[in-house]
Amino acid sequence: MKERYAFIVSDRTGITAQTMGQMLLSQFPPIKFKTVSLPFTDTVEKAQQAVVQIDSAVGESAATPLVFATLIDDTIRQIISRSNGVFFDMIGQFIEPLEKELGVESSHTIGSSHGVIDPEKYTSRIAAVNFAIRTDDGVHIGSYDQASVVIVGVSRTGKTPTSLYLSLQFGIRVANYPLTPADLDTGRVPRAIEKYRDKLFGLSIDPQRLAQIRQERFAEGSYAQLRQCQYEVSRAEALFRKEKIPFVDATAKSIEELATTIIHMAGLRRDLV
Amino acid sequence: MKERYAFIVSDRTGITAQTMGQMLLSQFPPIKFKTVSLPFTDTVEKAQQAVVQIDSAVGESAATPLVFATLIDDTIRQIISRSNGVFFDMIGQFIEPLEKELGVESSHTIGSSHGVIDPEKYTSRIAAVNFAIRTDDGVHIGSYDQASVVIVGVSRTGKTPTSLYLSLQFGIRVANYPLTPADLDTGRVPRAIEKYRDKLFGLSIDPQRLAQIRQERFAEGSYAQLRQCQYEVSRAEALFRKEKIPFVDATAKSIEELATTIIHMAGLRRDLV
Repeated sequence: MKERYAFIVSDRTGITAQTMGQMLLSQFPPIKFKTVSLPFTDTVEKAQQAVVQIDSAVGESAATPLVFATLIDDTIRQIISRSNGVFFDMIGQFIEPLEKELGVESSHTIGSSHGVIDPEKYTSRIAAVNFAIRTDDGVHIGSYDQASVVIVGVSRTGKTPTSLYLSLQFGIRVANYPLTPADLDTGRVPRAIEKYRDKLFGLSIDPQRLAQIRQERFAEGSYAQLRQCQYEVSRAEALFRKEKIPFVDATAKSIEELATTIIHMAGLRRDLV
Repeated sequence: MKERYAFIVSDRTGITAQTMGQMLLSQFPPIKFKTVSLPFTDTVEKAQQAVVQIDSAVGESAATPLVFATLIDDTIRQIISRSNGVFFDMIGQFIEPLEKELGVESSHTIGSSHGVIDPEKYTSRIAAVNFAIRTDDGVHIGSYDQASVVIVGVSRTGKTPTSLYLSLQFGIRVANYPLTPADLDTGRVPRAIEKYRDKLFGLSIDPQRLAQIRQERFAEGSYAQLRQCQYEVSRAEALFRKEKIPFVDATAKSIEELATTIIHMAGLRRDLV
């Protein structure tokens, strides 16, 4: 079977269009798609070039290409809509009914989602990223009073990427602290972070999966052995339960899911930055 | 003027729905929106609860709430569509024309975009994040042979968040190296990274903005003085031009824009992970 072209045309980064496109295309697993991103299509000239590219794919492949577009500017949108691809208008489709419902015209301003941002939000986002890096893996505990949440869990449960995602995507200040075997032996919240008890959020994981992840990194010693992983995970979960620390099982979850689950369960503000 | 409610209903993380919703709402600047996220709406019961919440907002505010939904399951979508809000169906609207065009039925599988992922992709994504952290700010230069790109620039141009974003969102291995005043004095690519010349990508910035950013962190010494910033930026840009290192001005760009611009200009693979 031939691959089917799917073009993602956007006037900015194309991240939203690509995510939406992938979500839709993933609903059609029998078909193989060849995705081509055309971000920053923000002038008439670039739009015309995009049309040439789409139309040449019509010749190359037997099937008509799909075109997913998030384009604010009417002129550019119209140019793209006249290509020989099948046009999916992910903005225009909703702008008109919104104008009607809200009783005002849309501003037709490009890029307010991933575009130029107000300096204050930008600064606080960068500060959140720097905070996550500075406090990664249990260092600079003295700064935890500035954290909105402190993720705890045994080694290799995904604490670091989840913290970074929360800081980058939502501007939330997150620290993370590893529960070491020595910590777990005590059966108590580690002394060093006792003060921040109310900010703790646990990550757990299936011991089998954990052993697999650890083996990919360091096969040496007991660290990656299944028995060790079973011990650590069961002690960590027992601690979470005893201390009423909310926790989530990271085994089959993506970083996005872990991040949004934490926001949801911890009742944090959820503003994209 | 009263705030208008905008509900974001999703069966998974709601990140896509929220981004799309914010992009659309940002087109109507005169109106103040109060956004409520209802992620993980993946059962009939949760859908019914969501409807109760939407309908109670109708009573609370004079205006009808807006409802943006990315819901795969038909039953759940139908329940939400029967609320008293104005329903914007960001999946269903496109699924039917796609089914028609592709000649196959959709799989109606929830969450293939930010959902459970194949372990191989997941592992390489985490590896990219760990790589970005390990090589942040000019350390572990010996590992740069594994990098797809090495971001260079003077202090506080956004190298770190851009590297992390590229690793988290696209699974790309990115290192970053700071151009120090001592490096810039030589007028040459720093010795330590000469070997990786072809992987270098520059970030520049307006000196005024740079001085402002630096002042917010360390007001001490010459580091944040405008003259110093002007010197560093002009030397860095001269170096980029002389050595034909591609570069981009970070002044008015978001992290997403910097990341996608680098992918675009450096011709990197752009797969969401």
